[in-house]
Amino acid sequence: MPDQSIDPRTGTPFGPILPETTDAEFEAVLAAADAAFPPWSSMSRAARARAITAAADALDAASDELVPLADRESGLGLPRLTGELARTTFQLRTFAAELEAGDYLGVVIDHVNSEPLPVGHPDLRRMLVPLGPVGVFGASNFPFAFSVAGGDTASALAAGCTVVVKAHPGHPQLSDAVGRILHDALVSAGAPDGVFGLVRGFDAGKNLVTDPRIKAVGFTGSQGAGRALFDLAVSRPEPIPFYGELGSVNPVFVTRQAASRPSLASDYLDSLLLGVGQFCTNPGVIVVPRDSDLADRIAADIAERNGGPMLNQSVRDLYLRHVDELTSKPGVRVIATGAPADPNGFAAGPTLAATTASEVFADPSIVTVECFGPAGLVVTYDTDDEARALASVFPGSLVACLHADDDEELALALLPILAARTGRVVWNGWPTGVAVTKAQQHGGPFPAATTSMHTSVGATAIRRFLRPVAFQSVPLALLPEELRD
Amino acid sequence: MPDQSIDPRTGTPFGPILPETTDAEFEAVLAAADAAFPPWSSMSRAARARAITAAADALDAASDELVPLADRESGLGLPRLTGELARTTFQLRTFAAELEAGDYLGVVIDHVNSEPLPVGHPDLRRMLVPLGPVGVFGASNFPFAFSVAGGDTASALAAGCTVVVKAHPGHPQLSDAVGRILHDALVSAGAPDGVFGLVRGFDAGKNLVTDPRIKAVGFTGSQGAGRALFDLAVSRPEPIPFYGELGSVNPVFVTRQAASRPSLASDYLDSLLLGVGQFCTNPGVIVVPRDSDLADRIAADIAERNGGPMLNQSVRDLYLRHVDELTSKPGVRVIATGAPADPNGFAAGPTLAATTASEVFADPSIVTVECFGPAGLVVTYDTDDEARALASVFPGSLVACLHADDDEELALALLPILAARTGRVVWNGWPTGVAVTKAQQHGGPFPAATTSMHTSVGATAIRRFLRPVAFQSVPLALLPEELRD
Repeated sequence: MPDQSIDPRTGTPFGPILPETTDAEFEAVLAAADAAFPPWSSMSRAARARAITAAADALDAASDELVPLADRESGLGLPRLTGELARTTFQLRTFAAELEAGDYLGVVIDHVNSEPLPVGHPDLRRMLVPLGPVGVFGASNFPFAFSVAGGDTASALAAGCTVVVKAHPGHPQLSDAVGRILHDALVSAGAPDGVFGLVRGFDAGKNLVTDPRIKAVGFTGSQGAGRALFDLAVSRPEPIPFYGELGSVNPVFVTRQAASRPSLASDYLDSLLLGVGQFCTNPGVIVVPRDSDLADRIAADIAERNGGPMLNQSVRDLYLRHVDELTSKPGVRVIATGAPADPNGFAAGPTLAATTASEVFADPSIVTVECFGPAGLVVTYDTDDEARALASVFPGSLVACLHADDDEELALALLPILAARTGRVVWNGWPTGVAVTKAQQHGGPFPAATTSMHTSVGATAIRRFLRPVAFQSVPLALLPEELRD
Repeated sequence: MPDQSIDPRTGTPFGPILPETTDAEFEAVLAAADAAFPPWSSMSRAARARAITAAADALDAASDELVPLADRESGLGLPRLTGELARTTFQLRTFAAELEAGDYLGVVIDHVNSEPLPVGHPDLRRMLVPLGPVGVFGASNFPFAFSVAGGDTASALAAGCTVVVKAHPGHPQLSDAVGRILHDALVSAGAPDGVFGLVRGFDAGKNLVTDPRIKAVGFTGSQGAGRALFDLAVSRPEPIPFYGELGSVNPVFVTRQAASRPSLASDYLDSLLLGVGQFCTNPGVIVVPRDSDLADRIAADIAERNGGPMLNQSVRDLYLRHVDELTSKPGVRVIATGAPADPNGFAAGPTLAATTASEVFADPSIVTVECFGPAGLVVTYDTDDEARALASVFPGSLVACLHADDDEELALALLPILAARTGRVVWNGWPTGVAVTKAQQHGGPFPAATTSMHTSVGATAIRRFLRPVAFQSVPLALLPEELRD
């Protein structure tokens, strides 16, 4: 099926019909990415950093073209998309700076040790080298930051890998425009022509994962699509790493002392409804003490909230289906809804459901349904023991929040339980808003990610596209520069 | 099928019949490993280091019991096995030292930055935490260093994971003895009872990989068994990392100037025939200039070498089958053989085959047959261009060697080609002998390992059993000690 832009505010198609990549085009893109890998990976780190910085500059310079196009294709609004483009180019520059610094190479130098075995050893020097061409699948909910020029592409390019992106059908024209700007800026700055390529269509996506020239895949999207592509990646004759960030149900725990904080209900909804709830870090479940009025305050507030246009029809339909699935479960009831201000296009309103700890213990699947969109579930608990037991029921998540005073025994008990099943623990804050910084961890135990061992945001994301090589007794002059004394 | 020791020098069974783990026993071992994970992983690093050191001490103290038993089950000889036990306990102590140092935790602390987005961010602190209970499959060719108390077990325990080992049927009594000593020493030093467990039998092995309580697997063994278990690990409802070190064809390249070195032929055979060739780092293929006499010198030398008893019947039978497969290929011919000094038991003699570069270009599968045992293949080349093209034909390997002078153009050209498809490059040396040191890389592109991104030897092997967690805005007093300022 060819791609075509659709305005989510009206449901109306617009712009050119962009055909699927043909087999011959696919072969040309992959051959170019493969041929470009040796020259790109052997360019100096400084030269690669300059090319990536040039790409960031070119994208910033095209802001007036790109942001309105992104808005028309996604409905996410100009202010958010302006910020997201700035985040995306900041991300590219962050990886360029990492490249210049070189710490990410993980250099270890062990000089000769002439003691007897097992202590003695020859001169051994180890560093990380890039894996090869990388396939990237972006997400519809971050048309800049998790798409064509997003974190996966930025970290793979910085690692020294060439990149082939499967364009997301949710923003086909933007994908084209960003891909063109990125490619041209990299090549103008000295990168080989195949450093970046773009393919389009369902079959091209599958073929990208199974092509023997592709050595790793980065993916952001749904659990269903992510698992299907993961299965392809690991069943290849040569299995490859597949970094799928699949979204998750992110719990927010509120202790008795925190529950009475005045702004907690509205702050929760600000996070839950941001971008019409279309964040993989959306705080889908909030766990609160039954004897507080917090659930009532959230319910009263949500009825006045509006929702808005969702990204596309399939996101909206899936949202409605998941809300239906969740609220059809015994023991779960809808306690409040809001309506979209404008019912046209792919609009959806917020929903708040509620249940109790004992219902969740009876059916833990209640807290496994990710309603990707503006829906929240309040779970009430009676005792601290119940809250602790609840924390152990949640599946792996990207992020878990804890609202508490720091002298509360329950807070101390919950912290390690939450940390054991999530990628990030937030204290007295909200899960949305993933800072681009070195200590960031955006990932988590399955099903939040296909592997919990890496992050897709922050400087350490580069490690996903590197492998170690050790050089034993190699003369200094023949070693890569970084391994000389 | 129950396990029973067999003396490889005679083919005679000896000692008790050790039954397969029953379902009830399996459940008890896994439940104990799962229950022991929280207390073991939350013990202080110093306390875990003390327990691991105590295990090393206990194994050393039992050397007089363990080494003769290992020799009788493996036929590898007392000197080699004495050295291997020392390597194994050194390895345990190395990880204990890493634990005390704490660098492996990868701590990153980003203090609050109050600039506007995208630069600004909250306080974020990241460290690595253990994955959970780990399954370990040892190899028959290293009954100490890559088995019950080997590198996988040592690195997983150091990471804070509990360990369940599938005992190798090639050394069943040794597995029992080592497992008992390891378990008792750890527990006497304060570890919870389930910190280490052992299971036995084919079904227990499969169930270990698929059990939802197991969060990662370390494996050393054949490509067939490794791939089958990898497939199980990644097709679980919750896929887990599977670190399979599968052995490989490790090429040795010799340039024109190096080919005339007098001891090269005998040094090559020393490495090739060490331990009856039963090393995953065995230098299976040597690539030499046709116009040198090196191939003739190797052939003349090998005819005087003896081989010896292989580890067990299936290793010996597989060796003979692979030699047959290799030497039946068009263009490959046997040029010399040796005979085992003692033909009893599972004895095998060395074999040297030869072919040319053009035959390999016509059928690259010639250099993909791993003859695990005392067999070498000499590939002759005419021109430097041919040598370079040959280097690109080899599949992923654990290690590649280059014998050359450092002013040879061919050496400069070969180094990056070899580094691009191997885990370790050795200059003017041999692949056997894998030093236990931080810069070591024992792994490599598939099929050498199921993932090229990690090592199974050396201090960085611990990273395989850890994942990052970020703590956002968490009060200092509530943070793990390592993350406080």
